[in-house]
Amino acid sequence: MAEIKYDIIKNVGILSESPKGWTKELNLISWNNKAPKYDLRDWSPDHDKMGKGITLTKEELMELRNILNNLEI
Amino acid sequence: MAEIKYDIIKNVGILSESPKGWTKELNLISWNNKAPKYDLRDWSPDHDKMGKGITLTKEELMELRNILNNLEI
Repeated sequence: MAEIKYDIIKNVGILSESPKGWTKELNLISWNNKAPKYDLRDWSPDHDKMGKGITLTKEELMELRNILNNLEI
Repeated sequence: MAEIKYDIIKNVGILSESPKGWTKELNLISWNNKAPKYDLRDWSPDHDKMGKGITLTKEELMELRNILNNLEI
């Protein structure tokens, strides 16, 4: 399997932590030395394992902020 | 492969649309008839195909809103 290189440029925030210590985080990540993207994903306690997640552009993140601020929760 | 049943309870918002018409959406979705969860995911134009995504609890979504409102973007 091809290796995926990633570099966590910035820990933006932690959304939640599971009983086993995995955290759901918003980070700014550079994948394979490309321009960094925002990334929402589960991580093991020492960040050596990652779960499913999605990447988001700055524009998508700004739109998500608008959506959440208009949502009654 | 086991079948996944899902029911889109509410279209909360659209973050972006690709040139091919796929949309990145925040929805409230019930998976396999379980209690609905918030879900951030890519969808084909007629919602018959889905891409990678993550589910979020209401509490995680509220925390994400706090994080985004403190982020300078």
